[in-house]
Amino acid sequence: MSETQNTPSTLAVDRRELQELVRSQLQVLLEQGNLPGAKALLVPVQPADIAEAIEDLPEAMQAIAFRLLGKGEAIEVYENLDTSVQQALIEDFKRQDVLDIVDKMSPDDRARLFDELPAKFVRSLLSQLSPQEREATAQLLGYEAGTAGRIMTPEYVALKEGWTILRALDYIRSRAFVSETIYYLFVTDAARRMVGILSLRHLVTGQPEQTIGDLMTRDVISVRTDTDQEEVARLVQRYDFLAVPVVDTEERLVGIITVDDLIDVIEAETTEDIYALGGVQSGGDSYFQSNLFDVARKRVVWLSILLITNTVTTAVIRSQEDILQQVVALAAFIPLLIGSGGNVGAQSSTVVIRGLNTQEISSKQALSVIRREAIAGTVLGLMLGAVVTVWAYVLQGNLPVAVTVGISLVAISILASTAGGALPLLFDALKFDPALMSAPFITTIVDVLGVLLYLTLARHMLGLA
Amino acid sequence: MSETQNTPSTLAVDRRELQELVRSQLQVLLEQGNLPGAKALLVPVQPADIAEAIEDLPEAMQAIAFRLLGKGEAIEVYENLDTSVQQALIEDFKRQDVLDIVDKMSPDDRARLFDELPAKFVRSLLSQLSPQEREATAQLLGYEAGTAGRIMTPEYVALKEGWTILRALDYIRSRAFVSETIYYLFVTDAARRMVGILSLRHLVTGQPEQTIGDLMTRDVISVRTDTDQEEVARLVQRYDFLAVPVVDTEERLVGIITVDDLIDVIEAETTEDIYALGGVQSGGDSYFQSNLFDVARKRVVWLSILLITNTVTTAVIRSQEDILQQVVALAAFIPLLIGSGGNVGAQSSTVVIRGLNTQEISSKQALSVIRREAIAGTVLGLMLGAVVTVWAYVLQGNLPVAVTVGISLVAISILASTAGGALPLLFDALKFDPALMSAPFITTIVDVLGVLLYLTLARHMLGLA
Repeated sequence: MSETQNTPSTLAVDRRELQELVRSQLQVLLEQGNLPGAKALLVPVQPADIAEAIEDLPEAMQAIAFRLLGKGEAIEVYENLDTSVQQALIEDFKRQDVLDIVDKMSPDDRARLFDELPAKFVRSLLSQLSPQEREATAQLLGYEAGTAGRIMTPEYVALKEGWTILRALDYIRSRAFVSETIYYLFVTDAARRMVGILSLRHLVTGQPEQTIGDLMTRDVISVRTDTDQEEVARLVQRYDFLAVPVVDTEERLVGIITVDDLIDVIEAETTEDIYALGGVQSGGDSYFQSNLFDVARKRVVWLSILLITNTVTTAVIRSQEDILQQVVALAAFIPLLIGSGGNVGAQSSTVVIRGLNTQEISSKQALSVIRREAIAGTVLGLMLGAVVTVWAYVLQGNLPVAVTVGISLVAISILASTAGGALPLLFDALKFDPALMSAPFITTIVDVLGVLLYLTLARHMLGLA
Repeated sequence: MSETQNTPSTLAVDRRELQELVRSQLQVLLEQGNLPGAKALLVPVQPADIAEAIEDLPEAMQAIAFRLLGKGEAIEVYENLDTSVQQALIEDFKRQDVLDIVDKMSPDDRARLFDELPAKFVRSLLSQLSPQEREATAQLLGYEAGTAGRIMTPEYVALKEGWTILRALDYIRSRAFVSETIYYLFVTDAARRMVGILSLRHLVTGQPEQTIGDLMTRDVISVRTDTDQEEVARLVQRYDFLAVPVVDTEERLVGIITVDDLIDVIEAETTEDIYALGGVQSGGDSYFQSNLFDVARKRVVWLSILLITNTVTTAVIRSQEDILQQVVALAAFIPLLIGSGGNVGAQSSTVVIRGLNTQEISSKQALSVIRREAIAGTVLGLMLGAVVTVWAYVLQGNLPVAVTVGISLVAISILASTAGGALPLLFDALKFDPALMSAPFITTIVDVLGVLLYLTLARHMLGLA
């Protein structure tokens, strides 16, 4: 734009005018909540001018305005700010009114408006936040819940490649009690890019005059700020790491995640998995903290879905009511058949879902898994079916009814175990959470099909019209 | 006994005779498999004589004979053995025929016959075993599956209190690559008893002339060889440790357990919990390794228990069959009622069992938990009941039947959520695994009570005889 000409003589005047314009416009747009407009306004402006405009804003708006800058620009603007304003800006990231504004934005809006923050700024910001504050500011930082960005800490030791062991050890001593771990040391270049990693074990066994570059491993396994925390946990579990470095899209080191935090992640993810198996939506709150309205809300969705499926079972029975009218004894076996079928299906789905979660089973092995579950269902069905046939005959003395019940149980077991094995695999292959196909759902599906199967079989076996 | 007099003149003769006797007797008893007899035979014998008797035994019997010694005696005997025999003895601990003998013993017999091994022997034995061999010899060592003894490693660095940092660092360098971790350093006295612990972080930040005793923490959290591995995992999770020391009954350090191994324990224990929730008995094998016979065996026990409960449901319906005969439409709603009730109960039991497993809920809070679940069940029951009443009326146009179904669903939901909350807590208080009261079991109990409740209510509501 014409205002940003570089001719020295006009520059002074233009800049002052421009600055006045940008400042007043920026504040108006921010007050209107027009963040896209404010972002667009700042695009053509020089970093130094943006810095001054930001300095003039009311405090609560400084952080928001800063957050609208592109990554490259943000660091330049930051460096143009007075030290006191730099400090104040970092303070702003904790302010509740600022966080409230961001909280109200949709995740899409946030992602579109907020670029990644520069690595240098992230580190100096994070190191001044308590873990609780880090949690609270995560939205403003743009890291989604459940990603590496949310659980990383900036308290690590970064060394330079050219340092000798002696110099490194001195540096480590000075950082030992402000770092989350000193057992893994991260080597960065002048641009904060990760170039290597070194364990303290290797460092203390090296010769004093060796350099970090001599000892470090260049082949570093790292994660990105947006990597799913469950994936990070799996990586640590697989490689027996004590910590993993977190880098941004430009491979700059912004934090680390230590194994103790990942154990907590594993526990939280397990709770989520187990809740899904029980048909409960999981949430962040602990048991006694969540209020009963939330509890009901988290459970009613699944119950409603299952209720709809259950009504189909009822409709099936209604449509076959003439059979029950003729042989009412058949009704007595319905709960037993669908109950046992549900249990067989619950077993299969539990084993398969757990296998998928621990990566012991992959959806590539689907055919082999389904075959195993089908065979298991057949074996179990034959065992249970034999017992039930005898028992049903003893109970009411009608052999055709007893045989119908027995055969139905075998068929329902096979159906249940096959569905229990196949549906989680199908969901996994479709990139849904396989736990959605857990016991409650399988049980309910088995209800519908089991009843249909049983009554149809009874119609034929008992020669009913 | 008279044979062990200390008069020099008679000693030489007596000892030779005694030795001959012990040797021949020992071999005979061992060949007969009379281990208690062999153990008793060795009690009055001097360590040096036992050592010679053991040296004369066929190889496969040496380890068994050694294992029959009391702890104090075992170390004295061990030190009396030739170095080559010491070495051979450790080799014997890996021999398959030796392990087979031990495998055939009942755990009670093993516990009665085998004393704890001396710490010194354990360490030199374990350090010569591969992790696979360690697993295999665990029975002979007397560590039960699932205890700290089974997962500990002897590869740790032990320092002495009087050492300077400089000396300690030299020692650590020499041990750095044969130790599982050097980040935690364990301080023992001359009798191998734990006296302190020190992190490498503290060591490298100390002054070179300071001693280990100056820097170490004396208040050490350790576990015993028989501590449950789940408890060890919880300890590490709680205190964010990288490793935990394992001591024997005399507080002597015998091994350490590192955090990476505990993550695997957490995964295995989680699988066990999840399997229990799905009504599957868990076993060591991985999914594809276990044969189908084992699969069926692990599942049929639970299915049979649930089947018995299910037959009660059938018996209940049989006893109320006159009601169904009069209003056959009632039968159509049975699967819906017990299915929905089962789902509500499954949610409550899942949440409560998980809470107990993560220690978020304790059985001391039982009343408060049961009240919460009962209220949740009421709220959910009212919501589902209202929907179902309308739907039942639309489906078959009979208002009393529709109202009966609706009221039953409310009552069944309250019953299911209360049982789902209370039964795991009851089991936990009785020191059983609360997961035994999981979804499949709760569902099946709800079946019985739900059907009884529904048909009894119907009898009154519809004015049937």
